[in-house]
Amino acid sequence: MGEQRYVGAQSICFTEDIYVLGRAAIVGKKEGEGPLRSFFDEIDETDMFEGKNWNDAESRMMQKAAALAIRKAGLTPKQIRMLFAGDLLGQLLASSFGAGELPIPFLGVYGACSTMGESLLLASMAVGGGFADCTEAVTSSHFASAEKEFRFPLGYGNQRPLTATWTVTGSGALVVGNRAALERCRAQREEEKGRCAGALCAGVEVVISGGTIGRVTDFGIKDKANMGACMAPAAAEVVETHLKDFHRMPEYYDKIITGDLGEIGAKIFADILGQKGFQVEPVQEDCGLLIYDNELQDTHSGGSGCGCCAVTLAGYLLDKLYEGEWSRILFVPTGALLSPVSANEGSSIPGIAHAIVLERKGEEK
Amino acid sequence: MGEQRYVGAQSICFTEDIYVLGRAAIVGKKEGEGPLRSFFDEIDETDMFEGKNWNDAESRMMQKAAALAIRKAGLTPKQIRMLFAGDLLGQLLASSFGAGELPIPFLGVYGACSTMGESLLLASMAVGGGFADCTEAVTSSHFASAEKEFRFPLGYGNQRPLTATWTVTGSGALVVGNRAALERCRAQREEEKGRCAGALCAGVEVVISGGTIGRVTDFGIKDKANMGACMAPAAAEVVETHLKDFHRMPEYYDKIITGDLGEIGAKIFADILGQKGFQVEPVQEDCGLLIYDNELQDTHSGGSGCGCCAVTLAGYLLDKLYEGEWSRILFVPTGALLSPVSANEGSSIPGIAHAIVLERKGEEK
Repeated sequence: MGEQRYVGAQSICFTEDIYVLGRAAIVGKKEGEGPLRSFFDEIDETDMFEGKNWNDAESRMMQKAAALAIRKAGLTPKQIRMLFAGDLLGQLLASSFGAGELPIPFLGVYGACSTMGESLLLASMAVGGGFADCTEAVTSSHFASAEKEFRFPLGYGNQRPLTATWTVTGSGALVVGNRAALERCRAQREEEKGRCAGALCAGVEVVISGGTIGRVTDFGIKDKANMGACMAPAAAEVVETHLKDFHRMPEYYDKIITGDLGEIGAKIFADILGQKGFQVEPVQEDCGLLIYDNELQDTHSGGSGCGCCAVTLAGYLLDKLYEGEWSRILFVPTGALLSPVSANEGSSIPGIAHAIVLERKGEEK
Repeated sequence: MGEQRYVGAQSICFTEDIYVLGRAAIVGKKEGEGPLRSFFDEIDETDMFEGKNWNDAESRMMQKAAALAIRKAGLTPKQIRMLFAGDLLGQLLASSFGAGELPIPFLGVYGACSTMGESLLLASMAVGGGFADCTEAVTSSHFASAEKEFRFPLGYGNQRPLTATWTVTGSGALVVGNRAALERCRAQREEEKGRCAGALCAGVEVVISGGTIGRVTDFGIKDKANMGACMAPAAAEVVETHLKDFHRMPEYYDKIITGDLGEIGAKIFADILGQKGFQVEPVQEDCGLLIYDNELQDTHSGGSGCGCCAVTLAGYLLDKLYEGEWSRILFVPTGALLSPVSANEGSSIPGIAHAIVLERKGEEK
């Protein structure tokens, strides 16, 4: 019998280190004007990524991010054994077409804006379980393709309520691998020094050490312009379960960073956890609140979309870990499970969230 | 470092047995009139499953199948650590809402009609990697919800070309687990003898022993009424890769069973593999051709949909393995990655397929 790698009610732990080998964050114009601009690899001022329509633009952006993360790891696509990818569009349109250009075995995943959590957990599990030495997780969203899919055509010029979030145009990709893959990447980097400089060369690593898989929770909220409220209960539940499964308190983490709850959702999330006896405010962050300046950029309640937490992780969050500002974070992508059909039929919007532990390893600062 | 469980270019192998612990196949009226009727657990003559619309019907069907497979395994939902589920609808509508009623950590997956391949591989990997003792894979499709999503409203009464397949109304679920979970199920079954009778009680087991993860392949076909042709190249590629990765010939398997290529796709699949030096005809079957009597039931090229190969596996294929008619099969669910948007924009339809090895273990017949 193999080693047991599950803990408590819903959690998993990695008994060997799963290393972040490469990462890429590619965004559109608005994200490039926001407070995280310096953490992104590439900003496309046209939002089109040389595509011929919005869906095509998203596919190309996703494919670019996936390829760039592999290149930055010092690897080739052929060395990646599995690609876990997803997006917000029906039938994973952006990922399916983007993956078609990459010669990597493909596993499509969907958890709305929590998809980066799911894809990163599965990519890590594939490595941790010995099914691959090297895998990749990538997700994307595009403001224009998402508005078309879920709300109104851009040309209609509808007013957005203040509870609404702004779908991020961006794609974040992470290549993860085992110790052997890390050694290979390092040797490769040593050879091509300068091309992929950064903390990795200096012996500092970020590892994925565990996680908690969330359940679908439905609090009966039906307002698709208030997704923070739909997702907050799911995020609170998965964080509570995580802390109990591992017998930890919130302050065990330097930061607990939710996906895209936005202003309203983040408040509800902290309130629910407070009632359960967990004070998260001192360590709480939200990718949806980090990515835009809501006042200056008129984004109302914050950013959202599969790309939101993916680019924030691949850019800003990992930088903070590599640089030693934080040594351990809980990354909690959150998703609102609505479809245009379910929303128009008056169904409620269930939420889901997954939690992932990322830790810095290496010389202490 | 953990045990290496990957083989060749795209394959994985399970170094410990992953057991099928429970299974359920629930279908609609047309499937209940077909040649496999006696292999299904439940047939709903109304196709509505007490739902209030087609999407809701599919959600309820999926939820019923998931719950029944757990019950037949002698387990409770709380004992399942992860649920891998998917369907054809935008944003996995059926699975998301169905999973909301089950207290199981949820991971949504999408690979069009190949989804049962993906969910079963991931469910098995989670167990094989030590991340769970017990997981479940379930997929669904519904003729009426799929026609609405992809083609024409039923009331429009359009004519279907002879290349078209008929989306199966059905949901298939498999509970898989490790040796310890099997022992628990057996003890439970021993206690409640009679309730879950069958081959499992007699010491015969079916195990999942390996698989090959497919890549997205695009041969430029644009006809959404000829999905067999879109998927056949992907199926041929994954089977060829599988046979090469494991150094096997087609006759190593009693049957190589594709998902839902239908009449035209199955022919193309065999032709491509023949050109590569692999004669599959003697062992070839296709779930899309098994599930209906195409002449009597007017289903043209055969059955399709996420539910097609799922119910055929959970019902017919596993029965043949438990009964000893076959001792080893390669199950190859196939998917056509189209969305209503991509199809209407004139994009091609890429295909994908995954291969899974299922083997009988126990006293020889």
